[in-house]
Amino acid sequence: MTYSIAILGASGYTGAELIRLIAEHPQMTLTALGANTKAGQSIAEVFPHLRHLDLPALLQIDEIDFAKIDLCFCALPHKTSQEVIARLPGDLKIVDLSADFRLRDPQAYQTWYGNAHAAVEQQKEAVYGLTEFYRDEIARARLVAGTGCNAATGQFMLRPLISAGVIDLDEIILDLKCAVSGAGRSLKENLLHAELSEGYHAYAVGGTHRHLGEFDQEFSALAGRAVKVQFTPHLLPANRGILATGYVKGAPEAVHAALAAAYADEPFIVVLPFGEMPSTRHVRGSNFCHIGVVGDRLPGRTIVIGALDNLTKGSSGQALQNANLMLDIEETTGLMMAPLFP
Amino acid sequence: MTYSIAILGASGYTGAELIRLIAEHPQMTLTALGANTKAGQSIAEVFPHLRHLDLPALLQIDEIDFAKIDLCFCALPHKTSQEVIARLPGDLKIVDLSADFRLRDPQAYQTWYGNAHAAVEQQKEAVYGLTEFYRDEIARARLVAGTGCNAATGQFMLRPLISAGVIDLDEIILDLKCAVSGAGRSLKENLLHAELSEGYHAYAVGGTHRHLGEFDQEFSALAGRAVKVQFTPHLLPANRGILATGYVKGAPEAVHAALAAAYADEPFIVVLPFGEMPSTRHVRGSNFCHIGVVGDRLPGRTIVIGALDNLTKGSSGQALQNANLMLDIEETTGLMMAPLFP
Amino acid sequence: MTYSIAILGASGYTGAELIRLIAEHPQMTLTALGANTKAGQSIAEVFPHLRHLDLPALLQIDEIDFAKIDLCFCALPHKTSQEVIARLPGDLKIVDLSADFRLRDPQAYQTWYGNAHAAVEQQKEAVYGLTEFYRDEIARARLVAGTGCNAATGQFMLRPLISAGVIDLDEIILDLKCAVSGAGRSLKENLLHAELSEGYHAYAVGGTHRHLGEFDQEFSALAGRAVKVQFTPHLLPANRGILATGYVKGAPEAVHAALAAAYADEPFIVVLPFGEMPSTRHVRGSNFCHIGVVGDRLPGRTIVIGALDNLTKGSSGQALQNANLMLDIEETTGLMMAPLFP
Amino acid sequence: MTYSIAILGASGYTGAELIRLIAEHPQMTLTALGANTKAGQSIAEVFPHLRHLDLPALLQIDEIDFAKIDLCFCALPHKTSQEVIARLPGDLKIVDLSADFRLRDPQAYQTWYGNAHAAVEQQKEAVYGLTEFYRDEIARARLVAGTGCNAATGQFMLRPLISAGVIDLDEIILDLKCAVSGAGRSLKENLLHAELSEGYHAYAVGGTHRHLGEFDQEFSALAGRAVKVQFTPHLLPANRGILATGYVKGAPEAVHAALAAAYADEPFIVVLPFGEMPSTRHVRGSNFCHIGVVGDRLPGRTIVIGALDNLTKGSSGQALQNANLMLDIEETTGLMMAPLFP
Repeated sequence: MTYSIAILGASGYTGAELIRLIAEHPQMTLTALGANTKAGQSIAEVFPHLRHLDLPALLQIDEIDFAKIDLCFCALPHKTSQEVIARLPGDLKIVDLSADFRLRDPQAYQTWYGNAHAAVEQQKEAVYGLTEFYRDEIARARLVAGTGCNAATGQFMLRPLISAGVIDLDEIILDLKCAVSGAGRSLKENLLHAELSEGYHAYAVGGTHRHLGEFDQEFSALAGRAVKVQFTPHLLPANRGILATGYVKGAPEAVHAALAAAYADEPFIVVLPFGEMPSTRHVRGSNFCHIGVVGDRLPGRTIVIGALDNLTKGSSGQALQNANLMLDIEETTGLMMAPLFP
Repeated sequence: MTYSIAILGASGYTGAELIRLIAEHPQMTLTALGANTKAGQSIAEVFPHLRHLDLPALLQIDEIDFAKIDLCFCALPHKTSQEVIARLPGDLKIVDLSADFRLRDPQAYQTWYGNAHAAVEQQKEAVYGLTEFYRDEIARARLVAGTGCNAATGQFMLRPLISAGVIDLDEIILDLKCAVSGAGRSLKENLLHAELSEGYHAYAVGGTHRHLGEFDQEFSALAGRAVKVQFTPHLLPANRGILATGYVKGAPEAVHAALAAAYADEPFIVVLPFGEMPSTRHVRGSNFCHIGVVGDRLPGRTIVIGALDNLTKGSSGQALQNANLMLDIEETTGLMMAPLFP
Repeated sequence: MTYSIAILGASGYTGAELIRLIAEHPQMTLTALGANTKAGQSIAEVFPHLRHLDLPALLQIDEIDFAKIDLCFCALPHKTSQEVIARLPGDLKIVDLSADFRLRDPQAYQTWYGNAHAAVEQQKEAVYGLTEFYRDEIARARLVAGTGCNAATGQFMLRPLISAGVIDLDEIILDLKCAVSGAGRSLKENLLHAELSEGYHAYAVGGTHRHLGEFDQEFSALAGRAVKVQFTPHLLPANRGILATGYVKGAPEAVHAALAAAYADEPFIVVLPFGEMPSTRHVRGSNFCHIGVVGDRLPGRTIVIGALDNLTKGSSGQALQNANLMLDIEETTGLMMAPLFP
Repeated sequence: MTYSIAILGASGYTGAELIRLIAEHPQMTLTALGANTKAGQSIAEVFPHLRHLDLPALLQIDEIDFAKIDLCFCALPHKTSQEVIARLPGDLKIVDLSADFRLRDPQAYQTWYGNAHAAVEQQKEAVYGLTEFYRDEIARARLVAGTGCNAATGQFMLRPLISAGVIDLDEIILDLKCAVSGAGRSLKENLLHAELSEGYHAYAVGGTHRHLGEFDQEFSALAGRAVKVQFTPHLLPANRGILATGYVKGAPEAVHAALAAAYADEPFIVVLPFGEMPSTRHVRGSNFCHIGVVGDRLPGRTIVIGALDNLTKGSSGQALQNANLMLDIEETTGLMMAPLFP
């Protein structure tokens, strides 16, 4: 069976990545592409790299006939997404890639994002989209909230350690390095090539990055107590890839064993042999997440490093994985492509 | 039916690209990977980005049982390739990615490469591997010689113009820009990141690049007279992609029409609407070649620009396309993936 | 003696480059920095890399007391510059880095830039700022029009060849590759890191780039007849540097000799030994221009390649060189720094 | 007065950086350049970006007449340096940029570097070259051991905090990101452009990087007790720049105050206003080190971030600063150039 798919926000980077992946999916057809600011343009104009595909032109979102859509991906900006989703048919299956439905507590949402939530009803039914940990709920969900790309990386590294009780919950540091496509296709001076290439810096230092809302929610739920990590993101001169270096207190072997056990049967999460380290270039363009563990020279301290492609496993690949579950398609369908190296 | 495939020279960039593509090919299985200098290592050690694949460890070439192989890709260095192929079974189907069998005239080979050919017999049966122009011969061939990546780019741009007689054959200039993976994975000071990034330069200036041997052979055969182009390659700070700017004398509309007609039914060669220009980033990681045409302000002069990924359509993708033909598999199988952007 | 200097448009890349250079100039003091959109900000806010300098905060241009200024650099956008300069004191020495005063013929200006010139009177006294060829006029000038960065590169390569009569004037092709800072600090989608890095493309193909107005004006004046070159610029994934590959018809030795003779006494123009090729990385951050010559395999054809830093010799370094002349300071003062490599 | 200077190891990146800086130094003349593997070549051959300088050709080290040299920089590889310095005249002033004389305890040297020290006598008189903290000893020294570039960065961030007693000495984490020129000009597969660009990874994870020997020596001496930090370096796709993110336990304001006080009179160490963050692009090519401080959301935890150019303040700039002191030249001479941005 082939399902009819819509993408809202098709002119951004996560939209392009969804098209790239779905174009080769044997059970999905792209029926409608919405992009308000570029409506009327062909995909060849907006994304010349996709010009070989036979795709419909971009539409205003309200021009789309959702009755014909089996599942809709929302790759819209934060805040816009909740406004749009509030008006979509109530029985439409939706995978949202924005931040709008990730935080279950509307108060937490307001704290991190600065505005009252505009779709509180829809929020109640949203399932958090970290596939490997919410698989069953996602399969039954109508609305899935894709995780933040940084939040996904950190959770893949840390959730099994919290669950297994092998690390000190009050001493977790995540030093994360993210490529520039994570910031989207928006016109900001600090995203210009001349500002970014050949340099790097930290941002949102001190615990102000919004993905901390997800870490707090998920890690605390998992531990049954408040868990607050330190998290410092850095912007790097590359287009794709997140690498996060985690500093934890716990026995290295126990940390590695907990991760290896947690992901033994996961097709996309690869725990490297003890002592081996991942690299963003080894996951680029793929849906894989590589995790490495090594013990520090200081006894009882362990370094955990995770790497994934922010546009694939960090957002659009994850979204497709969730959509597969929601449509009862084999979970890995369309997602087993190898990374692009060099 | 599934075919059993070997790759010799699996530890270089074209070898890695072959594995990436073949891993998803529905009718091919990678049975043997040869790489003399890294024999004994697993693919995860040599190419960690391919560690999710269930592949055999690297072997010495003479450890491979070629009786079980349906088709063998040779991704070995120039000169090594002819020595190895001379010793392989005489009925083994081979796609060679090196320069060794591209020039039909052994004297021309010696002129451009500086040594006598060591496999003159095998050379006689070799078919030039530019798929779109040698399709029938390739389908019947035992040994196919993959083209140079620069040579492929230039020929896609110029062959239809020579055939159609729409340009001055004595006034052709190709100014070509190539990414660094074209130089392979060899340890040379000028390929270090610190030497290359943030800079660019021309090399082999003045008509000394070996791919001119292919241009001379092919264009002259096509024209029925000697055709010698000017060709200047430049090295650019990027990993993948060739963009060649061609300066020809002929009417822009006739040039565009000749290209459009020649490639109307080709799945991988995309002639852009008149006046649109290609970019390497729109073909990266794909088997597509984009070609644009625009008229210059000087009457009777036309600029033709072609772009492809040197590792895919320029070598390993082309090789797989040829292998599909040789094994009577649908030609586009395993090659329709979209480019990776950004 | 120390001169008092103002920079208008101090918040762009050419403004920053002027500050970098003048900060170390022994006979100049930066008295006023104008930048309307960022007026009120400190230089540390606008350019943190200049925070060690003791500089005045940015001002609105009309807040500046020009009576105290010995020389003013205008690094404003095209069109804005002529409007501002028309209102500045008529005896103020000015070096303009915009395109506004480069074309002597107001009609030519209108043709290339699309609007009537708003400062025709000032235009009459403007001297074209290609230092090595207008040195005496510049020393006596009140208003000097800095050249385009591409126009400078091409003229350094070609003027001596036209003057010496060693090339065919109707067969000149300039294939130019420019880094991204040449496009300035403006917010355009195609200047984002994720759009530019790892890729390259041609733009303004077919003879539409505005710097052709300068080539036409200068080359024709030099030759005493109309000279129209073919010129194709390309955008490269690097921050600084222009490399232009020139295809001319003429004897290689004569071409090299003409260049060597023309620049024998020039401190900044380096003609490489015959057969050696320049690289942008060897001039980055410096005021040098390197030029190489090689003969093609086709008799009577020669390749000339020039390289310079678009922000230094291509604009701000050139501007300072001109200012030195206008203030009767030794021409090379503040400009002999070595390139930054790697 | 002008001093006569020699550089041994002039063909590497730190050698090139020394030449770049000294070429503009008003009181130094480059008299001899040693580079055994490239002896006989001109500087234009080895470093075309320095071709405008009037410099002697490269020599074998034993061809140099050290009697005419006032001060010698050794930019040789580790281990080679000690062997060469052991044979140099005993009264020659030397600034060594290698790791060979940084560790005062020969046993510690052997532990970190794996071999017995071959110049134990010379080691005894060596002064550790972190200028801002060993200024007086350096001024009187004959042999100064330049610090590691990572070690310099971390010490600038942490020494004042240890001295002031404002942080927990057992809870210091340094997550460091280094550009590729820090690895030198050596031919290693992992330094190729195609391997490095568009990706990043950690290396020497777990406390195995040799610069930890310097941290241990210096921090422990400062604290009067053993201090062992956690240190994880990462390799980034850029040519120059180190950015280190330090996680400490202490009050943010006290941390900032301690740094501001320590560096109030230092010309090269810039403590940013509280809450501002440095970037490698704001120090590139300069001798400045920028340090920023911000408090984490977790009470009592502070993030300190330092940035410098590994080739300048991290090695060759520091070396020149030390040489100035040793020759009784004003310390900042030749080192006040602004960073190169973009």
